[in-house]
Amino acid sequence: MKTTTLKEIAEQLGLSVTTVSKALKDYPDVSKKTKELVKNLADKLNYVPNSFAVSLRMKESKTIGIIIPTMVHYFFSKVIEGVLKEAEKKNYMIILLQSNESYELEKKQVDLLINKGVDGILISLSNKTKDLEHLKKIIKRGIPLVLFDKIAKTINCSKVLIDDRKAAYEAVSFLIQKGHKRIAHFRGDLNPQNSIDRFLGYKKALIDHNIEFDSSLVYICNNNDDFNDGFNNAEKLIKDHGKNVDAIFAVNDLLAIGAINYFNKKKIKVPERIALFGFSNWFMSSVITPSLSSIEQHGFKMGEKSAQILLNEIYCKQKGIKIEHQKIIIDTELVLRNSC
Amino acid sequence: MKTTTLKEIAEQLGLSVTTVSKALKDYPDVSKKTKELVKNLADKLNYVPNSFAVSLRMKESKTIGIIIPTMVHYFFSKVIEGVLKEAEKKNYMIILLQSNESYELEKKQVDLLINKGVDGILISLSNKTKDLEHLKKIIKRGIPLVLFDKIAKTINCSKVLIDDRKAAYEAVSFLIQKGHKRIAHFRGDLNPQNSIDRFLGYKKALIDHNIEFDSSLVYICNNNDDFNDGFNNAEKLIKDHGKNVDAIFAVNDLLAIGAINYFNKKKIKVPERIALFGFSNWFMSSVITPSLSSIEQHGFKMGEKSAQILLNEIYCKQKGIKIEHQKIIIDTELVLRNSC
Repeated sequence: MKTTTLKEIAEQLGLSVTTVSKALKDYPDVSKKTKELVKNLADKLNYVPNSFAVSLRMKESKTIGIIIPTMVHYFFSKVIEGVLKEAEKKNYMIILLQSNESYELEKKQVDLLINKGVDGILISLSNKTKDLEHLKKIIKRGIPLVLFDKIAKTINCSKVLIDDRKAAYEAVSFLIQKGHKRIAHFRGDLNPQNSIDRFLGYKKALIDHNIEFDSSLVYICNNNDDFNDGFNNAEKLIKDHGKNVDAIFAVNDLLAIGAINYFNKKKIKVPERIALFGFSNWFMSSVITPSLSSIEQHGFKMGEKSAQILLNEIYCKQKGIKIEHQKIIIDTELVLRNSC
Repeated sequence: MKTTTLKEIAEQLGLSVTTVSKALKDYPDVSKKTKELVKNLADKLNYVPNSFAVSLRMKESKTIGIIIPTMVHYFFSKVIEGVLKEAEKKNYMIILLQSNESYELEKKQVDLLINKGVDGILISLSNKTKDLEHLKKIIKRGIPLVLFDKIAKTINCSKVLIDDRKAAYEAVSFLIQKGHKRIAHFRGDLNPQNSIDRFLGYKKALIDHNIEFDSSLVYICNNNDDFNDGFNNAEKLIKDHGKNVDAIFAVNDLLAIGAINYFNKKKIKVPERIALFGFSNWFMSSVITPSLSSIEQHGFKMGEKSAQILLNEIYCKQKGIKIEHQKIIIDTELVLRNSC
């Protein structure tokens, strides 16, 4: 198909190429009438600005990359919604990549985004990520980077997260106030910071309330299939501890829902016999029976805030303004339902 | 930051720029040893291929755009996962846009993707889309387009969908075989093709089994909040028909789950008093009480297939091979659980 050029539009209207170009970009020094003339003809001739060429000239691609560990996760869907809303406002587009909890893939995806020339990158790290060279590479290239939710403390960039330790502490303290003393913890992998922090919050709540910490009540759930992990570890928990356990604090809702399903199947009454507290407040937690108490993590807000910071850093970089990295803590809330 | 050029790499290794370029692109006529030398030095010098320049030369951006109506939807999350997997295999990247069920936004996003110079576009239409000029524009520009799930019949492009009418027919026939005669339908908006087809499948099943179609049993749920729509219409249904209704076929799981929540609250027994059948087989349908019968729609497979077809059409276009549009029907399955 033949492509219309700026020159052709300029010639047909008897204007300079510069004026046409400025009119299409809504420059204030071109009159409204001229802009209308130019835009109408451009539309009529199917004029498409060559965005690659524009990008080369402007040294920006108007795209940002986002790498998340997993797509089919209510929390991350909400985060992406927030990012899309913010990007849309500023006419940025989002390149979405899913690391699938694989460090190797995450590393490769960082290279892809760098090579693509994106203006900035948002990452929530995979559970397997220990080596951080790929993040340092982004910074070395001068590309704005914001880490969210699953972050690496030592990386020098902006971060948006929740106070996992505090949230876990509050949930477990609530269970203790309700009279529970033998509280199990279904924790995540040993590596991710938020899994560590939620565990530490759990432990501190016990100690502060003079309840002995019993490591045999902590179950590591890292099979990448939270629902079945929750189901199986609930079975194991009852085998290991019988009646000597009266509550579970789970590192995420899906684990807790798996456990509830096991208890429902075995007619073990929730919350009478065993209470449950989840984390993340998935939508489904409000509709299961019994409904699950959880911690609202405000995924949409986290996405929105992360994108705002990133877009601001991109702007600062382009204008040569010094970038001050931020660390934003998004508030969490206990959402109390029938499971405890 | 200083940028390393191909020329510098070539000079340092005593090779031609062409050889260096070919080595970096894994051309078969460069020896393995040379490729290694070049790649190692490129790594060391932080060489970044300028992907905009590459794009200009290759006339491809190695990106495809995808527009979906809504992000926080189990089905669409699965679709995107399938698309990402396929794209990853072929080293394509995905620009993700969410129309939020707005025709205006969808139209704007099509323009953005065209201007961005993506190699191809995947769209699942918003429920409000009636005017199809924006889709015709894509085709006019010669950009490969694949519509999936929410399609427009009259647009001349490849399509990946399910047989909504057949799936609905099977679900409603199952309810009839179970002895239900007064089956309500919670339908979607009047406009989208899959909402129409599911309604027609429902109606045909009734007629084929000699059950009179009663339009007062059909409730339109189009408030963009399916859970509450389901809850509220369940209340309305009982008010309108009392005991003279014994089952509901819902156009999606979330509506059915909203209805189940109403019935649970009012101690109306499911399935004894009223049976339910959903559509889409959300994960949460398997974990609620009672678990919900539904229709598995294979979102992952739909995403995978849509991306395969699109990438193939992009390939054909680049090679000048004639493109034959396809219409792929992804099989559905009834998933029977405790709600009927």
